[in-house]
Amino acid sequence: MNYSSAFIPTLREVPADAVIASHRLMFRAGMIRKLANGLFAYLPMGLRAFRKVEQIVREEMDAIGALEMKPPVVQPGEVWKESGRWEAMGEAMLRVKNRLDNDFVITPTAEEAFTAIVRDELSSYRQLPLSLYQINTKYRDEIRPRYGVMRGREFVMKDAYSWHRDDESLDKTYQAMGRAYRKIFKRCGLTVIPVKADSGAMGGSGSEEFMVESEIGDNTLILCKDCDYAANVEKAGCKPDFTARSPEESVAAAANTPLFEKIDTPNVKTIDELCTFLNNSPTNFIKTLIYRAINIEDESAPVPEKFFAVTIRGDLDVNETKLAALVKAAEVELAADSDVVRLTNALVGFAGPVGLKTLPIIVDHTVTAITDGITGALAKDLHYRHVAYGRDFTGSVIGDIRTVKAGDLCPLCGGELYEKKGNELGHIFKLGYKYTRSMNVSYLDENGKSQIPTMGSYGIGVDRTLASVIEEHHDEAGIIWPVSVAPWHVIIVPIKYEGEVKVAADELAAVLEKSGIEVLLDDRNERPGVKFNDADLTGIPWRVVVGEKGLALPRPQVEIKHRREKENRTVELDRAADELLLLYNTEVNMLL
Amino acid sequence: MNYSSAFIPTLREVPADAVIASHRLMFRAGMIRKLANGLFAYLPMGLRAFRKVEQIVREEMDAIGALEMKPPVVQPGEVWKESGRWEAMGEAMLRVKNRLDNDFVITPTAEEAFTAIVRDELSSYRQLPLSLYQINTKYRDEIRPRYGVMRGREFVMKDAYSWHRDDESLDKTYQAMGRAYRKIFKRCGLTVIPVKADSGAMGGSGSEEFMVESEIGDNTLILCKDCDYAANVEKAGCKPDFTARSPEESVAAAANTPLFEKIDTPNVKTIDELCTFLNNSPTNFIKTLIYRAINIEDESAPVPEKFFAVTIRGDLDVNETKLAALVKAAEVELAADSDVVRLTNALVGFAGPVGLKTLPIIVDHTVTAITDGITGALAKDLHYRHVAYGRDFTGSVIGDIRTVKAGDLCPLCGGELYEKKGNELGHIFKLGYKYTRSMNVSYLDENGKSQIPTMGSYGIGVDRTLASVIEEHHDEAGIIWPVSVAPWHVIIVPIKYEGEVKVAADELAAVLEKSGIEVLLDDRNERPGVKFNDADLTGIPWRVVVGEKGLALPRPQVEIKHRREKENRTVELDRAADELLLLYNTEVNMLL
Repeated sequence: MNYSSAFIPTLREVPADAVIASHRLMFRAGMIRKLANGLFAYLPMGLRAFRKVEQIVREEMDAIGALEMKPPVVQPGEVWKESGRWEAMGEAMLRVKNRLDNDFVITPTAEEAFTAIVRDELSSYRQLPLSLYQINTKYRDEIRPRYGVMRGREFVMKDAYSWHRDDESLDKTYQAMGRAYRKIFKRCGLTVIPVKADSGAMGGSGSEEFMVESEIGDNTLILCKDCDYAANVEKAGCKPDFTARSPEESVAAAANTPLFEKIDTPNVKTIDELCTFLNNSPTNFIKTLIYRAINIEDESAPVPEKFFAVTIRGDLDVNETKLAALVKAAEVELAADSDVVRLTNALVGFAGPVGLKTLPIIVDHTVTAITDGITGALAKDLHYRHVAYGRDFTGSVIGDIRTVKAGDLCPLCGGELYEKKGNELGHIFKLGYKYTRSMNVSYLDENGKSQIPTMGSYGIGVDRTLASVIEEHHDEAGIIWPVSVAPWHVIIVPIKYEGEVKVAADELAAVLEKSGIEVLLDDRNERPGVKFNDADLTGIPWRVVVGEKGLALPRPQVEIKHRREKENRTVELDRAADELLLLYNTEVNMLL
Repeated sequence: MNYSSAFIPTLREVPADAVIASHRLMFRAGMIRKLANGLFAYLPMGLRAFRKVEQIVREEMDAIGALEMKPPVVQPGEVWKESGRWEAMGEAMLRVKNRLDNDFVITPTAEEAFTAIVRDELSSYRQLPLSLYQINTKYRDEIRPRYGVMRGREFVMKDAYSWHRDDESLDKTYQAMGRAYRKIFKRCGLTVIPVKADSGAMGGSGSEEFMVESEIGDNTLILCKDCDYAANVEKAGCKPDFTARSPEESVAAAANTPLFEKIDTPNVKTIDELCTFLNNSPTNFIKTLIYRAINIEDESAPVPEKFFAVTIRGDLDVNETKLAALVKAAEVELAADSDVVRLTNALVGFAGPVGLKTLPIIVDHTVTAITDGITGALAKDLHYRHVAYGRDFTGSVIGDIRTVKAGDLCPLCGGELYEKKGNELGHIFKLGYKYTRSMNVSYLDENGKSQIPTMGSYGIGVDRTLASVIEEHHDEAGIIWPVSVAPWHVIIVPIKYEGEVKVAADELAAVLEKSGIEVLLDDRNERPGVKFNDADLTGIPWRVVVGEKGLALPRPQVEIKHRREKENRTVELDRAADELLLLYNTEVNMLL
C-alpha cells in the first residue's frame, strides 16, 4: 500500500493527557483518535494492528476447540436480573431504557447472555464440554477513563465461557485456556506474568490473571527473586515469620508472661509513637481495627453481624480481599469513627481485643504468636501490656489476612519477595455453579437424571493487549512492532519517489507482496528526514531505503535496517527481497 | 470440523413469530437465537456465514481504496448536536446518559463520528479524495422488530463515507461504490434491483438503493416490463398521460368551457360517489387536499405557511415524498379535520381551489390539463363544474407530485410499469455539504484558500444481506447456500461413522481441507435420515455420502449431490476429491 493513500496522520505533539508511552505513540503514529473521553476511534493503521491481535486470539481459541459466536452488544436487562448481577454490577454497567421502557445493558461481560443461550440448547451430557467465545464490543462506564485504550470506556474483549459435567472436565478446559493464553501473549511478543488472582465479583474458585508490568498498573504483584512465584497482592501469601499457635499452645507459651496491666500512654495514638514511647517493636503490638462487612453472602458466615474487630501484628497491614473472603462478605470496609466509638466505648486508636465483648474478633495467624504484647485498652490514653493470645483473649475466626509486601519471604522457596505494578490483560476463572444455578441450567446425565453443569469464564482485553505490546516495544522515536502485530512488515522509503528509484521501489514492493510480506511504500513527496521519522514513529519492523546513489553502483544496492537497529546494512537490490523474506521468517518463528 | 463439536442445534419446530423463510431457516438451522425482541445471537454456524458476507464487503471496499476504521459504537451526543441530528433522528435513535450525566448514542449510523474525526485531520486538498469505512455494530430502536435479523434492533452495517474537493470527484467515488455494491451482491449470489431512491432524512441529492424483491419489503418498487427502469415509488416518475399547460395555454384551451357553476351534490362525498352521481370520469375531477408541512428547511420555501392546499387529478394519489421535496419540508402530513374546517370554511370533502384565498395552492401537472373539471365548492353538499385551470384558479407551485402505479407508462421507454415489494440492502448517497458545513469541515486548496469538502455516504446491512441470500436460495427442506457464503463447502455424511467408512470419510475430509475446501464431517451417531435432513436444512452446497456398500465395490465409490439437485451421482472414492474441487471452482467462478 502506498503511504499517501493510507491515511496515517502522524503528529509531533503529544496530547496533554497522554502520560504513558502507548497512549502517546498510538496517538502520534495516527493509530487512534479520541472521539470523547474514553471513547477512541481506531484509524486504518491502528485497526490493522488491532486486527492482528484479534486474529491471534481467534486462532488460539479455535485451536482448543472453542467456537466463536456473536451475541448482541445491547443485551436485555432481564438476564442480568436473573443472575442477580443487575444489582451487583454497580454503576460501571451502562444501563439504558428504550422507548418501550424495556431495560437494556451495554454489555460489560457476557456470562448471562451465553448462559441464557446455552440453557435453551443444552439437553444431554453428550453436548458437554462446550466452549463458546466472542470477540466483541464491551462498555464499562469508567468514571475517569485514562491511559488511552488501556483504560477506555468502550473496548473489545475476547470472552469465552465453558460448561462441564464435573470439575475434572472444567479443569481440563481451564488448563487448555491457560496454555492458549500463554501462546497468545508469546505470539504478540509480550512478557506476561501469570499470577494467582482473587476472583473478585465473578465468584467461584480457581483463577489466574495474566499481567504485564506497568508503572500505571492497577494491580500490585508480589514476585519471588528466586523462584517463579507470582501473586496478586490481594491473594499473595508468604512464608510465616512467626510461630502459629492454637489457644492452648499460646497459653503454654505465655507461662512466663506477667498478668496484663493497664499503662498510661498520654497523647500517643499511632503504633510508631507507641513504639517510641514504650521503647518496643511493632511486632509486639496487637493492632486492632473495627470493620464492617458488606453484603454477607452466606447465612452461616462466621461474622453474621455487620461489624467485627480484626487483630493483626503491629507491623502488618490487613489485606481486605483476604479478610472479605475469610468472613464470606462481598466487601469489607473500615467502620466509621462514630461506629468505632459506639461499639468499643473508646476513642479511635484505643481499640483492643482484651475485654471487647460487643464484637466478634477475627485474628490473623501472626497474633497467635504474641505471648507478651501491647494493645489498646478500650479507653483514652490507655493501653494494656503483657497481653497474651489464648490467655487474655481469643478470636472467633483465625486466618491469614496479612498484606504480603516486599521483603517478606516466598511461600514456595523462602526467597525474598519484591513488588511490581501490573496491568491485567487476561483472566481465566473457574466460575463453578454461580450462573448455571441462578439461571437454572441443566442437562440429563447418562442415567436420565437432571444435573447442573459447572462453568468457566476466560477473558482477554484486545485493546489493552495491543497497547501493552507498544508499552513493551518502543523507544524514544516511536513504536517497535513485533512482526506478528505490525500493521505492515516492511516500509520502503525511496529517497525521491521518481525515475529509477521509483521503478526499483515499486518492483521490490511487488516482489515482497507476492511472498506475503505486507509492504508500505512511502511514495510521498517529503524530505527523507520526514519519511525516516515517520518510519521510526510507526514502528514498521524493516525499513528499506532506496536511493539514486545506491542504484547507480555497478551492483545496485539498497539499505536495510530493522527498527531495533541503529545502523543500516547495504544489500544488493537483487538480493533484497530474499534477505527480507529470510529476516521475516526468522522473526516469525521466534514468536511461535 | 466434526459435526459433533460444531454446536449446530437444529430444530424441527418453527417459532411462531418466524413468518419469512430466512427467519424460519436461520432459527431452525441453528444459525441464530433470540436473546430478546430484535436482539439476536449468531451461533457458530450462523457466524461463519455472516463473516463470509462481511469479508466479501470488506474486500470490495478495500479494492476501491476505501480504508477501514473502527470508531466506537457508543458515541458522544455532542457530535449529533453539532450536526443537528440529535433532534432530527427521533426516537429510533437510542440515547443514554452515563453516570456523569453525559449524553451518548448507541450509534445507528456514523456520518457525525467520521466527519468529526476527518475534520481534525484534514488540512490540505492533497488529502482528498478520502474514503473511510467501518463494519460495525449499529442499533435502531425499532418499535416492532420482526422478520428475524431482517429487521432487528441491533445489526451490523458497513458504512462508508467519502470527502471530496468537487462534484466530479464525489461522482467518481459514488460510481465506484455503485460498481462495488453490484459486485458484492453478485458474489453473494443475490439478485438486486438498483433503484433511484429518495434520500430521505439523509439530505443531499443523488442516491441509489439496492433492493431485493421481498413479500415483506418496506418499499414499493416501480419497474418497467420493457426496459430496466426501476424506481422507488417515492421517487418514481411516469410518461405523462395528459398535456401539461402553462396558465396561458390553459386559458386558451378552456376557450369553449362554460363558466364554472355551483351544483348540488347532496350526501355525496367520495370521488367515486361523485362520479356515479354526475356520470363523469375521475380524470375530470380536481382532487383537493389540505396538508401541513413539518420542519420547513428553507426560509425561501414556496410554502412558508405551515398549511397549504394540494390539487391533483381525481384518479391519482399524492406522493408525499415528492410533495415534501417540492415544498422543501422534511415531512408533510394531511391536515387534521378540524384544521381543514377552520382553513376552508367547509366540511372535509368539499375543499376546492376555486375561491380558496386562505391557503397557497400546490398544483400537480395533471391538473393543468383539466379544462372542464369538477371540484369541491368550499361548502357542504356543493361542487363546482366547468372549472378550468388557469382561468378559474392557479397554483403558487406546480410540479410532479403523483404516485406512480402499476399500469402507468415508463418514463424512459413508454412500456407498462408494474410494482414489486422490495427490501433495501444497500444505499449510496451524495450527501453534499450537509455535514461538512454544519460541522465546520474545511481544507486549504492549491491557492491556500479555505474550502468545504463535499461528502458521500454508502451503507450495506450485513445481517439483512445474509438473510436475503437465504430468502433467494432455499426450498422446503432448508437453505441452499451459494458457495461464497456457505458456512462450509462440503458436508461428508458417513452412513455409520466407524470402521472403513470412518477411515474413508476422514481421509476425504483431510484431502479436501488441504485444498482449501471447508468440510463439515457428520460424525454423529444418528440415523442416516436425521443426518440427511440436517444436511438439507443447513444447506451446505455439496453432500458426500460414504457407505459400507459403496466402499465394498471393486472400485470403491461414494455419492455426491449438490444441495440443489435431487439425485445422487456415484463417484469413485479416488476421484471424489478432484471432482468436488472442480465443482467447487466452477461455482466459485460463476459468482465472480
